[in-house]
Amino acid sequence: MTRDEDVKAALLIIGNEILSGRTKDANLSYIGERLNTLGIRLAEVRVVADDEVDIVEALNALRARYSYVFTTGGIGPTHDDITAGCIAKAFGLPLIENPQARALLEAHYEPGQLNAARLRMARTPEGAELIENPVSTAPGFRVENVYVMAGVPRIMQAMFESVAPTLVGGKPLLSRTVVCDLPEGRVAEGLARIQSHFPEVQIGSYPSFRAGNYGTNLVLRDTDDERLSAAAAEVFKLVADLGGNPMNDPH
Amino acid sequence: MTRDEDVKAALLIIGNEILSGRTKDANLSYIGERLNTLGIRLAEVRVVADDEVDIVEALNALRARYSYVFTTGGIGPTHDDITAGCIAKAFGLPLIENPQARALLEAHYEPGQLNAARLRMARTPEGAELIENPVSTAPGFRVENVYVMAGVPRIMQAMFESVAPTLVGGKPLLSRTVVCDLPEGRVAEGLARIQSHFPEVQIGSYPSFRAGNYGTNLVLRDTDDERLSAAAAEVFKLVADLGGNPMNDPH
Repeated sequence: MTRDEDVKAALLIIGNEILSGRTKDANLSYIGERLNTLGIRLAEVRVVADDEVDIVEALNALRARYSYVFTTGGIGPTHDDITAGCIAKAFGLPLIENPQARALLEAHYEPGQLNAARLRMARTPEGAELIENPVSTAPGFRVENVYVMAGVPRIMQAMFESVAPTLVGGKPLLSRTVVCDLPEGRVAEGLARIQSHFPEVQIGSYPSFRAGNYGTNLVLRDTDDERLSAAAAEVFKLVADLGGNPMNDPH
Repeated sequence: MTRDEDVKAALLIIGNEILSGRTKDANLSYIGERLNTLGIRLAEVRVVADDEVDIVEALNALRARYSYVFTTGGIGPTHDDITAGCIAKAFGLPLIENPQARALLEAHYEPGQLNAARLRMARTPEGAELIENPVSTAPGFRVENVYVMAGVPRIMQAMFESVAPTLVGGKPLLSRTVVCDLPEGRVAEGLARIQSHFPEVQIGSYPSFRAGNYGTNLVLRDTDDERLSAAAAEVFKLVADLGGNPMNDPH
């Protein structure tokens, strides 16, 4: 269920290589999990191609709707790295060579190595605040509620952690997981009853096929630890009563 | 670059467990790669929560814009499986118990095992065409250009393959990859020049960090094999001239 008092965020993944299936995204799950711990709910993700029209349209839709928008990809030195220009266009800001970013690149590269292509990585919308990149120097940047980060997971994670302390969330969403060896269809009716007793608790049911056997992971999420524990205890009892060998999974 | 004669598709991934980071999506890359071979370009992906308003809004946006829309997740027997009802709502169709789907479930389950929860998996919008599920019987379904599939990768893949022969694409998008041990910033300028000579070829540059060394994968895509080979040869020569030890990667 959606809880409107949530602080919500969106992720915009930019890159043909993700859509083609060639590269498997590794950033969504990292950002989703980290945001949970910060009390921010990742409410929507979009993946778009390296196409200005698509990027600008998606960005404007997401930044109007969510408290925070994170983007990954498209801020490197090559011709297909068009994210900075797209963010500037979306905000109606001029794209400039950011003096701070240029200074960082000049300090990083050997004399003669900072060519025109690498200088593309110093471009930001006017007034953007830089996001530190301790891995490879070329910075990300923030404009209002939009955080523009690299696509390479190592670099994205370092950039995310450099901004994480500045993000303001609500209560962290806590979770409990009950693992059992019953198929979903056996627990479904009892689970719906428990959900109706605990409308504030998000109860999710996810089938698993461990060792060729049907099993189910029952995941409960809530910001209230006591209520969450009470609901999880009912789910555990339901599974036990059905002979489903329940186990509490720390994850 | 976008090529407007493309046959384009979108993927709508439905599920809190993906957004929370708990479950890593494994369907995007499978669908993206398979669609390429069918001459269909995956142009956009959205991930939304198990929330009716979010699902209906995303589905209506995507089905109006793309030739094909695939959805994954939310068609199981539990209370949080709300996809079928959302698809019906998006199309303004009644949600019915599909007689064909019910017959499949009745044939699959032992007497007494087909409970009310499992019967939820027989619900489709009125007039929907079923998508076969050779793994666990409970079918997916199609309404107009929207293909509704399970989220469990094994089942999703089987459902996708059962509809793949019916999908009508354009020319398959072919690709060549040149791997090199140069950082992107060294190849960027020459690469931009080659891109300008071959505007129809999509040329992408993706950094890699193999064995702690900066490297770059240069990926070229086109429907025209001759043009693609000519562009790839120029990229190979560029890298060789820069001393970048180019290798043609079959992927």
